[in-house]
Amino acid sequence: MPDKKLMPSWLSLEEALERLLAFFEPLEREERPLLEAVGQVLAEDIVSPLDVPTVTNSSMDGYAIHAADTSAAGRQTPVTLPVDGYVAAGHVYPHPVAQGHALRIMTGAPIPPGADAVVPFEDTDELEQKEQGAQAIQSVRIYHEAAPGANIRGAGEDVRQGQRVLARGTVIKPATAAVLASLGLVTAPVFRRPTVAILATGDEVVAPGQPLGPGQLYNSNSYGLAALVQSYGAVPKLLGIARDTVEAVEERLAEGMEADLVLTAAGVSRGDYDVVKDVLLRHGEIDFWTVRIRPGKPMAFGALVGTDRRGRPRRVPQIGLPGNPVSALVTCELFARPAILKMLGYTQLARPSVSAVFHGSLTNPDGRRTFARAILERRGDSYHATLSGGQGSHILSALALANALVVLPEERPSLRDGELVQAILLDADIPG
Amino acid sequence: MPDKKLMPSWLSLEEALERLLAFFEPLEREERPLLEAVGQVLAEDIVSPLDVPTVTNSSMDGYAIHAADTSAAGRQTPVTLPVDGYVAAGHVYPHPVAQGHALRIMTGAPIPPGADAVVPFEDTDELEQKEQGAQAIQSVRIYHEAAPGANIRGAGEDVRQGQRVLARGTVIKPATAAVLASLGLVTAPVFRRPTVAILATGDEVVAPGQPLGPGQLYNSNSYGLAALVQSYGAVPKLLGIARDTVEAVEERLAEGMEADLVLTAAGVSRGDYDVVKDVLLRHGEIDFWTVRIRPGKPMAFGALVGTDRRGRPRRVPQIGLPGNPVSALVTCELFARPAILKMLGYTQLARPSVSAVFHGSLTNPDGRRTFARAILERRGDSYHATLSGGQGSHILSALALANALVVLPEERPSLRDGELVQAILLDADIPG
Repeated sequence: MPDKKLMPSWLSLEEALERLLAFFEPLEREERPLLEAVGQVLAEDIVSPLDVPTVTNSSMDGYAIHAADTSAAGRQTPVTLPVDGYVAAGHVYPHPVAQGHALRIMTGAPIPPGADAVVPFEDTDELEQKEQGAQAIQSVRIYHEAAPGANIRGAGEDVRQGQRVLARGTVIKPATAAVLASLGLVTAPVFRRPTVAILATGDEVVAPGQPLGPGQLYNSNSYGLAALVQSYGAVPKLLGIARDTVEAVEERLAEGMEADLVLTAAGVSRGDYDVVKDVLLRHGEIDFWTVRIRPGKPMAFGALVGTDRRGRPRRVPQIGLPGNPVSALVTCELFARPAILKMLGYTQLARPSVSAVFHGSLTNPDGRRTFARAILERRGDSYHATLSGGQGSHILSALALANALVVLPEERPSLRDGELVQAILLDADIPG
Repeated sequence: MPDKKLMPSWLSLEEALERLLAFFEPLEREERPLLEAVGQVLAEDIVSPLDVPTVTNSSMDGYAIHAADTSAAGRQTPVTLPVDGYVAAGHVYPHPVAQGHALRIMTGAPIPPGADAVVPFEDTDELEQKEQGAQAIQSVRIYHEAAPGANIRGAGEDVRQGQRVLARGTVIKPATAAVLASLGLVTAPVFRRPTVAILATGDEVVAPGQPLGPGQLYNSNSYGLAALVQSYGAVPKLLGIARDTVEAVEERLAEGMEADLVLTAAGVSRGDYDVVKDVLLRHGEIDFWTVRIRPGKPMAFGALVGTDRRGRPRRVPQIGLPGNPVSALVTCELFARPAILKMLGYTQLARPSVSAVFHGSLTNPDGRRTFARAILERRGDSYHATLSGGQGSHILSALALANALVVLPEERPSLRDGELVQAILLDADIPG
């Protein structure tokens, strides 16, 4: 990072993001219980400690036999074999199956030595005997010739001991948790979830639940940012609200020195009370502070340099987000999300986006890339985007209704009804 | 539900789903802290208790003035006004602004009586004076005529007291949490999250972390199902593993009588050891138990009738899922997910699906609707689906790799390379 001069830069989103992401790496490895690890990323390859299935077993309910004994069996020419016994999954039949004999076997039960095929119930007189009230079946008629290996799953057929089952970098989904459990694992080696400290600033900002004085407003940013950070898979830590003095901001930020990332909201513009940038200048390093985007032009990125509670030296990255609620949440999406995903070990850092037909009108007077709050829906095979409400950076309701951000590039001064546009998906469930 | 006869039905997915969903309603209302309520659904309309903003305030850093005093002001003909004082956001200036006077005002600060417009710094000599080293500004030159109301946000301009801000049925997203906080709320009235009890059954099933005997396998279903249930927004409760006796299953299920839904895995087929259906027949009511789908044909739905720990009568819906891991997870997706979402108050119960070009080949020999595990990607404006691995119902790895289920309808015996198919999206992040 450059030195402590506060040079107002004027960066493109790509330049800003590249500088910011260079600061982050996947965090250290930890072992997490499977259910808590969903959404985290494997920090190492998973090699199977066992064969799956562990032993050769039956894939059907039926009779384990020697295949050769069934040659020429047919509906009119059944082969009748004495039934020696009976084995269910989870149990081991203690004898081999002799030539000319059958063993009644249930799905998943180990195939005893001797037997080399399973004849399913429907190819025998099992059901007829049951319907006639037979309690234990003494002998069975086989109506169909069995090929050697029929209805048998070999040991290690699914997974071989020593085989790499999952690669480092795999995102753990519910089915991945099931795969890990099937190997006998109760924890997964994953990159640690980052802790993200969140500080709101402003003399006018009051915590929800408290009475509101004239000219004051409730702290919505901390809750919106914490909810976003949590949705990305990080652990939010609320540092509360700092008044607009360097001392108040410093005091609160000291509690953030244990975190992996600090987000501040407000205080990074050029007003008299924009003290967050002053704190960064005094106690840290500051990088860019203006990006060519709307909403969210005033932005700072830097590092807080200090010590944690135990006195260990720390250099904690800080993103100074703008104070307007929509700007704060959209810039969190654009900058904090990829940073958090990178710390979690993700390699796919961008949200998916689709090409959509735009409905409405939008202007871009000053060449900033504009991220408009929109409702995206699918009609047939095409996507359609409509503005979700007023585009002022204080109008939170339009962001709450939005499931996408429509992107108006720097060089495009306006967007008219029916034109094609890229839309970044904020939600999985796009209606249509 | 019909009476206690075990009639093997042969239902379509739609028939089965309709019968099942008829059992579920949104759960009771509860108040949840905002961050915990993300993903839950509002159980009532949210009406604003206040105007936002609470008072008329400045939308720019500048000077509050009487607009009439700036008439004919221009770069060559500035108007000079004495500056009476200074007010920042969160503070209230205690005097009116007199005609012919100016008040230095910061973004968000309340407009005092008298003033009816704000002239931004850039339309004054503020910067020139600062550059010349002025500490406190005594008088200001105004270079631009201000219209009445300029750069002023009226009280209630965003939200009026008493206005319905969010409707019952709204899913709480991070930006919704911010909206609720902006109204001063610290909790949200939402439909309660369901608790889902999960029981694995089988003599051959062993808990991960324990040693494995011959012919045994690890319990992957409980972990996969719990992770899915959790991803839908419900609270999983693991009931462990029951051995294949009616008594063992009964004993474990007694612990599920506090739950809103019980999921069992295995024991619903027609084998000798499929005791889950016997328990449902003895202690509950049973509805369908075969659905024309692949994977997942053997399925049961019923209700456990009994009492909870405090002796209160309970009738707990139970979905008897098949035991094969892929079948268990796919039927959880198809049946438990919409049931859970309905209890959570969602109205959009189906996953989004898209039309995709199929790559590979797939057959459907017996007229069951087939849900094939596939990797979906976007190329340009079209989606492409490729099978993610073997389609056997024990091959979990293909499900773990999949981000979509390709749907082969009942009447379609096969699917060839290049044909169009519907794909159900399992993930938000479709690459492309």
